[in-house]
Amino acid sequence: MAAQRAYLDHNASAPLYEAARLVVVAALDITANPSSVHAEGRSARQVVERARRDVATLVNARSEHVVFTSGATEAASTLLSPEWRMGRGAVRMSRLYVCAADHPCLLNGGHFAADRVTRIGVDGNGLVRLEELRAALAAHDKGQGLPLVAIHAANNETGVVQPVEDIAAVVKAAGGVFVLDAVQAAGRIILDMSKPCADYLILSSHKIGGPKGAGALVAAADLMMPAPLVNGGGQEKGHRGGTENLPAIAGFGAAAREARDRLTDIASVRVKRDEIEKIVTDMVPDAEIFGVCAPRLANTTFFAIPGMKAETAQIAFDLAGVALSAGSACSSGRVGPSHVLKAMGKDNLGAIRVSIGHLTSDEDIVLFRSALATILARRANGKEAA
Amino acid sequence: MAAQRAYLDHNASAPLYEAARLVVVAALDITANPSSVHAEGRSARQVVERARRDVATLVNARSEHVVFTSGATEAASTLLSPEWRMGRGAVRMSRLYVCAADHPCLLNGGHFAADRVTRIGVDGNGLVRLEELRAALAAHDKGQGLPLVAIHAANNETGVVQPVEDIAAVVKAAGGVFVLDAVQAAGRIILDMSKPCADYLILSSHKIGGPKGAGALVAAADLMMPAPLVNGGGQEKGHRGGTENLPAIAGFGAAAREARDRLTDIASVRVKRDEIEKIVTDMVPDAEIFGVCAPRLANTTFFAIPGMKAETAQIAFDLAGVALSAGSACSSGRVGPSHVLKAMGKDNLGAIRVSIGHLTSDEDIVLFRSALATILARRANGKEAA
Repeated sequence: MAAQRAYLDHNASAPLYEAARLVVVAALDITANPSSVHAEGRSARQVVERARRDVATLVNARSEHVVFTSGATEAASTLLSPEWRMGRGAVRMSRLYVCAADHPCLLNGGHFAADRVTRIGVDGNGLVRLEELRAALAAHDKGQGLPLVAIHAANNETGVVQPVEDIAAVVKAAGGVFVLDAVQAAGRIILDMSKPCADYLILSSHKIGGPKGAGALVAAADLMMPAPLVNGGGQEKGHRGGTENLPAIAGFGAAAREARDRLTDIASVRVKRDEIEKIVTDMVPDAEIFGVCAPRLANTTFFAIPGMKAETAQIAFDLAGVALSAGSACSSGRVGPSHVLKAMGKDNLGAIRVSIGHLTSDEDIVLFRSALATILARRANGKEAA
Repeated sequence: MAAQRAYLDHNASAPLYEAARLVVVAALDITANPSSVHAEGRSARQVVERARRDVATLVNARSEHVVFTSGATEAASTLLSPEWRMGRGAVRMSRLYVCAADHPCLLNGGHFAADRVTRIGVDGNGLVRLEELRAALAAHDKGQGLPLVAIHAANNETGVVQPVEDIAAVVKAAGGVFVLDAVQAAGRIILDMSKPCADYLILSSHKIGGPKGAGALVAAADLMMPAPLVNGGGQEKGHRGGTENLPAIAGFGAAAREARDRLTDIASVRVKRDEIEKIVTDMVPDAEIFGVCAPRLANTTFFAIPGMKAETAQIAFDLAGVALSAGSACSSGRVGPSHVLKAMGKDNLGAIRVSIGHLTSDEDIVLFRSALATILARRANGKEAA
């Protein structure tokens, strides 16, 4: 690895906040199982419950409505299930409605059969087509069960922010249940579960500056819950079994505190992101920045350099010392066309995602500029030589 | 909490090995997502793959057969499913056979309907009744699907070690699939997947001296796999989605190395455990030690003080500075009668579990002795006063 590198891939995994790191390291020395009744166990339990309050506060929910999971994907797999419970009674979700630009962990339908999943399209700006959603829900056969809608609050590739309140209103009018994937939105925009919003939120620790290995599903009320996916010794009030991942949960809580404190300073992240976009448009005047006409997260830009495959550009940036992404960082190293751009009806050579955060420095931006200059110069030379 | 305390509850959660702690702390500084293709991502990937080799080595399996999960309970919830896959084809498990002394995460049947779960009894020593298992499997209707058998290798309460090879032979003769819960056995007895053993193993990091938040399911071959429980971006070869919990997985690998190295020294743990049992039988001559006539783990003793409720004893030990357990540490603080003792046909005031490890010191044993003396003296005084 080169001596000096810029890590501009926060949407894949954000750097750990120092405050979270300290909490995780301290929690490593807590040996006890939080379910043990001895003093050591009770003390471990307090750490989990403090983190629960901190995570609840980040989204203005009640702490008893936070269920910790091993990450956002587990939370999504739990929520995207036909089998739910209301008290001791069973509730059936008969069809899942996802957005074509959702993250794969929603898009693959969770535990719904493929023919029980309807994809709702997005417009050229990446915004979910509300009329299409409304029409699909109107056609839903409630005799078979309830409609479950799962849509991202902010897109992990483009940063486009969906009209969450409008979606919530459409789902509510249709008598459906709304799961909001807030993984990329948390800590970057205000999420308030006390206002009309989603019925369930999905959160990830390592996308907000906490450690990997923790996530949560957060309910707006305690009316209904999905049947537990991971069932064991009755932890998390029976909603999620297994010994709690104490260090990760503690770090998640600390990161939630830090993320909330820093929300007021999100404008400074936007300034840096805009600086990066200016570098791109100055150096590549015909570059296309996707979702630029829609509300976007302050930390993300997703752009294409005409004629250059995203995969090629990503490798060139990597060699020039800049870690960024061509789309989402899943599926173990696979880089392919972006399903998000496809859903937006875009020409699809893929695009470059730069995603930053509060810890991104001016040096990182300087490195980005020089890397882009190197790539463009090499490309120009290649063209001349050809 | 008292100044000096003895933590004798390793079966609930074992202390973190220093080698594992160092690896976890180092891994906290690895920001990248192991699925990212840039240099940072590839470097994170190497850490995961090294841990995979180390965990495989602990049980003499092939590293490509190790699937990391968030813990043993998730591994159990994944394996205890009616829906399996062989290549692209579906395989159905039509009935689950568990052991009445299994950990709750097997005993509750995973994702099988309650009427699809058969419980096989144990004898007075806690050993699974092989003839009962053989008869149950002989009556299995293969027209509906395969029989899935899930049994613990070593009991978390008594430490009793099951005759794994004999169980495997019975299951194999019946054409069934055998899942072995090796959570308490790993690092305490030799597990060798290259010999006739289980088809799938369940492992937990925090029970072998690794951090909480990681576990694994390990296959003996790559013939069949359960349908993924947590499905997301295709990580773990499609068997388990979600960003890998890098610090916990790295620490799990380091603990697996340490646990393997220390297996040759397990006799020293047995010496300490026997010392504890001698203290108990010297001071309480009519104490009953459960499973003492069966093969047992070197680190565990499970005993009852006649006339004393386990819950009362556990609290008294806690107040006297000794953390130990009355049964398993699940279900968030619930302490009730032991289902393991019930299965063994024992009178059921519960029992006290002392579980130790390589890091247990002579001072811990001295503390145990004085705590027990205090409890017995107070009890004698109480009786005199009454």
